[in-house]
Amino acid sequence: MIIEKYNTRAKKINSLLCIGLDPDFEKLPEKFKNLKNPQFEFNKWIIEETHEYVAAYKPNMGSYEVRGKDGWEDLALTMKYLQKNYPDIFTICDAKRGDIGYTNELYAKAIFDTLGFDAVTLHPYLGSEALKPFLDRTDKVSIILCRTSNPGAGEIQDLEVMDKKIWQIVAEKVSRDWNKNNNCMLVVGATYPEELGEIRKIVGKLTLLVPGIGTQGGSVKEVIEKGMNSSGLGLIISSSKAIIFADNPKEEARKLCGEIRKYEV
Amino acid sequence: MIIEKYNTRAKKINSLLCIGLDPDFEKLPEKFKNLKNPQFEFNKWIIEETHEYVAAYKPNMGSYEVRGKDGWEDLALTMKYLQKNYPDIFTICDAKRGDIGYTNELYAKAIFDTLGFDAVTLHPYLGSEALKPFLDRTDKVSIILCRTSNPGAGEIQDLEVMDKKIWQIVAEKVSRDWNKNNNCMLVVGATYPEELGEIRKIVGKLTLLVPGIGTQGGSVKEVIEKGMNSSGLGLIISSSKAIIFADNPKEEARKLCGEIRKYEV
Repeated sequence: MIIEKYNTRAKKINSLLCIGLDPDFEKLPEKFKNLKNPQFEFNKWIIEETHEYVAAYKPNMGSYEVRGKDGWEDLALTMKYLQKNYPDIFTICDAKRGDIGYTNELYAKAIFDTLGFDAVTLHPYLGSEALKPFLDRTDKVSIILCRTSNPGAGEIQDLEVMDKKIWQIVAEKVSRDWNKNNNCMLVVGATYPEELGEIRKIVGKLTLLVPGIGTQGGSVKEVIEKGMNSSGLGLIISSSKAIIFADNPKEEARKLCGEIRKYEV
Repeated sequence: MIIEKYNTRAKKINSLLCIGLDPDFEKLPEKFKNLKNPQFEFNKWIIEETHEYVAAYKPNMGSYEVRGKDGWEDLALTMKYLQKNYPDIFTICDAKRGDIGYTNELYAKAIFDTLGFDAVTLHPYLGSEALKPFLDRTDKVSIILCRTSNPGAGEIQDLEVMDKKIWQIVAEKVSRDWNKNNNCMLVVGATYPEELGEIRKIVGKLTLLVPGIGTQGGSVKEVIEKGMNSSGLGLIISSSKAIIFADNPKEEARKLCGEIRKYEV
């Protein structure tokens, strides 16, 4: 089962840490900017500095697409590098895709086969029928947006249907219906710890990808208290810019990994 | 006002037709498959055959991303070709993006600046705060998914909040709040004509991008009867595979354009 790839790695290194490989070109250290593959070279350096603390890497497509085909090449090289050197680290494409079925087949091919990711983040708005090309891939993980980390997440997600909010309905649907192949996860922002606790109650042991630690202000302690499942797993705790653009990314990754270990039960 | 670019073109050629440039590589005629830029060369041919009937072109990102950086190059070349030869034709990037604000800034740059599109399709799930980098671009159009064309669209979109469905709430929010810069449109599938009529009542003159004609089975007559606004505009009627993979794309575009003209008031 593909989800075991993440669990195995997390247990092996005793870490639930995910690092977002979001190398905004403008923010790269000068020495990388003039290289032929600046984002790839930067990622390679980050991976070498941080891998011992890392259960998953999560590149965000936006950081690469802004550079057009050069960005895509750097992302593809990054994936090849990870597959060759660290094949047991779980890889998440933070693409937030979601189209009609026919187009989702193409996106699934692009992300799972052309690029070789283990998992992808997806919008729920078109429903499970449209997401079938992702959900049917028993060898890959579909991570559905449930409660996002941004300040205005509630505008749509807090709308109430009978006595439930949209994010509660998405959590129910995904864990009870969409997860037939045991290959679904949910995105839940660290910036909403109360909702995280509620979602944990709804979804049983389902794994939650939790961004919003670091720059966005979420607390590791609260995320673990509210979000961990009964097996001491069920969380992928993600930080991006606070680590990769720190003066010392290795030290920053070590600190965050240590903080996660401290609060684990 | 950027929306006038579409209206001006539509009035000039008396057509509301949009062609989806979704050149699935597997389906390309053999003679294109071996060229250096197969999707670009195919698009160039389709554009030359069809432009006289076309108010907008709408490439779907999925068709290109599946080929990695080669696909991106073909998409970029297609956009350059359109800008140079047919600068008055409206261009829509069917990317269905939607991330947190910081990442949306990067996507907006990628789609509006790196690639040069006039408009992009967007998911509403993260709310208007996250979409600000798109909505703030007064020189570009944000087209928000409201009622999508796929058979399972209702699973999330038909959920009822008090006495309104999610798609009604999205239509209200976008037309009343998100459209402060007069640069919003909505996606409404041709496969749901009743909802299209309801949405027209909610949004006044707002322009609706209507996919689902052709392969998906929507009716031009119903789309125009239910969806046209009081200025005889307000619709972008989109067909993709039924035109570009027809034996004679020019004839197919001419016929669909003729059908649109026939039902116009």
